[in-house]
Amino acid sequence: MSDLQAYVVGLADAARKASLGLRTLSADAKNRALAAIADRIRERSPAILAANARDLERGRAAGLSAAMLDRLGLDDRRIAGILASLAEIAAFEDPVGETSGVRRPAGFTLQKVRTPIGVVLFIYESRPNVTADAAALCLKSGNAVILRGGSEALTSNREIAGAIREGLAAAGIPADAVQFVDRPEHEAIDLLVGQEGRIDLVIPRGGEALIRRVTERARVPVIKHYKGVCHLYVDASADLAMAVKVVVNSKVQRPGVCNALEKLLVHAGVAAAFLPALAAAMPQVELRGCPRTLAILPGTRAAVEDDWYAEYLDLILAVRVVDGCDEACAHIERYGSRHTDGILASDTAAIERFVAAVDSAAVTVNASTRLNDGGIFGLGAEIGISTDKLHARGPMGLRELTTYKWVVRGSGNLRA
Amino acid sequence: MSDLQAYVVGLADAARKASLGLRTLSADAKNRALAAIADRIRERSPAILAANARDLERGRAAGLSAAMLDRLGLDDRRIAGILASLAEIAAFEDPVGETSGVRRPAGFTLQKVRTPIGVVLFIYESRPNVTADAAALCLKSGNAVILRGGSEALTSNREIAGAIREGLAAAGIPADAVQFVDRPEHEAIDLLVGQEGRIDLVIPRGGEALIRRVTERARVPVIKHYKGVCHLYVDASADLAMAVKVVVNSKVQRPGVCNALEKLLVHAGVAAAFLPALAAAMPQVELRGCPRTLAILPGTRAAVEDDWYAEYLDLILAVRVVDGCDEACAHIERYGSRHTDGILASDTAAIERFVAAVDSAAVTVNASTRLNDGGIFGLGAEIGISTDKLHARGPMGLRELTTYKWVVRGSGNLRA
Repeated sequence: MSDLQAYVVGLADAARKASLGLRTLSADAKNRALAAIADRIRERSPAILAANARDLERGRAAGLSAAMLDRLGLDDRRIAGILASLAEIAAFEDPVGETSGVRRPAGFTLQKVRTPIGVVLFIYESRPNVTADAAALCLKSGNAVILRGGSEALTSNREIAGAIREGLAAAGIPADAVQFVDRPEHEAIDLLVGQEGRIDLVIPRGGEALIRRVTERARVPVIKHYKGVCHLYVDASADLAMAVKVVVNSKVQRPGVCNALEKLLVHAGVAAAFLPALAAAMPQVELRGCPRTLAILPGTRAAVEDDWYAEYLDLILAVRVVDGCDEACAHIERYGSRHTDGILASDTAAIERFVAAVDSAAVTVNASTRLNDGGIFGLGAEIGISTDKLHARGPMGLRELTTYKWVVRGSGNLRA
Repeated sequence: MSDLQAYVVGLADAARKASLGLRTLSADAKNRALAAIADRIRERSPAILAANARDLERGRAAGLSAAMLDRLGLDDRRIAGILASLAEIAAFEDPVGETSGVRRPAGFTLQKVRTPIGVVLFIYESRPNVTADAAALCLKSGNAVILRGGSEALTSNREIAGAIREGLAAAGIPADAVQFVDRPEHEAIDLLVGQEGRIDLVIPRGGEALIRRVTERARVPVIKHYKGVCHLYVDASADLAMAVKVVVNSKVQRPGVCNALEKLLVHAGVAAAFLPALAAAMPQVELRGCPRTLAILPGTRAAVEDDWYAEYLDLILAVRVVDGCDEACAHIERYGSRHTDGILASDTAAIERFVAAVDSAAVTVNASTRLNDGGIFGLGAEIGISTDKLHARGPMGLRELTTYKWVVRGSGNLRA
């Protein structure tokens, strides 16, 4: 066994062992631990900021972009944000122990009881505040977590994870419930995702290349989303003034995130009226159009095949004129990423056809794609958004970090 | 692309295409198709039985065991069983379209709507009736299915799958909704489980070696159980007469299945009273005991370390005397398979400690492990039992063959 392999197995074994105690921990005990963690992060914020300054210095020397450096940076305001998030997660209801489906088949009592998943491996990039969020969500849902952040934030994450582990210990919970992978090698990830039996779930968050690498090598279940290629379809029956506002909001409110709009499909019957109004309402957005779009908006750049698959994460929008709802659904089926896709329409038949046919984590009707968010859905903070179909779809919060077991309570019941 | 690879991709693409139409199919249409499938199987039963006779002949020539040949064989009674199962699945409620969690966060209506998963790859062994059961469960839950049965049943399965596809076509549903892998090569499985983007879920059912091979090579989510090493713990507070009956039922009612009892843990305080009574009640069962068991039941074979991990599927039971509930839980944590584990006790504190600490798909209290079954739980027929923790745990029926999507219904709602 290599040194790295021994390190990884040691982390995973320690997390597994700690997870046993978390299974039966009360919500109160978990909330006390979250408060203790917040105390430690507050106390240690000078050390955290100093560590972050070292990461930023290294990042500047390595030529990270301004956007990357901004994501990496911490300051008093962002530390306050971490503390607010910890308090918010403490206030969420604990899903563990919830009992549903109580019935009495064949003379015994059957319950479906919500339980922690066990050990979660969380792989992420850039923003150090994610370290605290992920640890808090896993702790509150009764899971041990192994945190593997980006190497550019290693020093900051190490310091935050240290504060978290001190907080756990202060609250009488084994510090090993939160493990921090303090090795920069990519191979550590490859080894971790192979730990079937020690790790129950992998959640990778970051660029598509990272997520593909994890999925290819994993022997442990993975929940992920590769990318968000979100569509809106403007039907002939749409309120066009409303449609302009919803498209603009979906595209420009925060273009760099996964639920931002990337593709627009417009019914041929309203394209000539709609597209000029839309272009005027968001002059800062570069349009890339199909031939019919170009006929309506001359001078627009022509979209190529790759444009229909692309996640721009930028002020760019590809536009295609379609002959109706079915063509829109077929386009989304072919090019979409099953993240968030919506229709703007007043015709009920078109709306219901679209909602039934489009197989995405979230389908929106007369609403911004940007609303697909755990916080806005009222589900609380999310550890990620899933475009997978198994276990969790869309925002993945506390409930999605749990599973269930069946409890049979009998009085000597036998199988006949 | 090899010939086999092209074949596999063709099957998966055809299934994916057929799955689009299944998404929006009504329960009535699906039930009519199940009836048409039953008609075709009835009509073609002479051909099915003739095909089965060829499989049996080949099996005898290949030296299959009597038990294997029994599992492989079809007769009029088993055909009637297939037809009864189709009628039963038609009578189940269709989970697709069920809406839950309706709320109005931030001024829009949010619904969680149950949808089919998409394309399911089902890999199984031996019994040809599973071909019809699996196709029916997937169809009723709106999924296309790719069926890959054991090579020993290839002729029978081909004939049954042909009847199913004729039934679908007769009911106006694309026959490609049910795909049959008509190639005996093991490599076909390796290629199929790599079809990410075409196949959404793999359910392997069979021996541990097959399931491990699938899990190692899969790029598609897998739901499985490797084995069922089920435990019962007899607490000092147990009603010993009831405990004898429950242990005997769990062990001998059908020893060859995954929810049969394999290990018994007995509290030291009652072992001397309980074990002789148990041994007398099931003289046909071979016991393998820990040293303390051997002291109570002299002449019993000594259990070795491997016995604690073994799934005998036979009239053998390993017995260990423990000092209490916590030691029993620790034993189950270490050696168990997370399938079905139970306690026999009247002490509420011991019962609740056991129920909270034991992390198995089903935990039983004063009841036979054999009760962990979709039919007995009132969930309907099951396509498998999961000892995984993601998506589905325990019996996996129609509901577990579906997922959900979020539907946002707004009136121009934007993200602030």
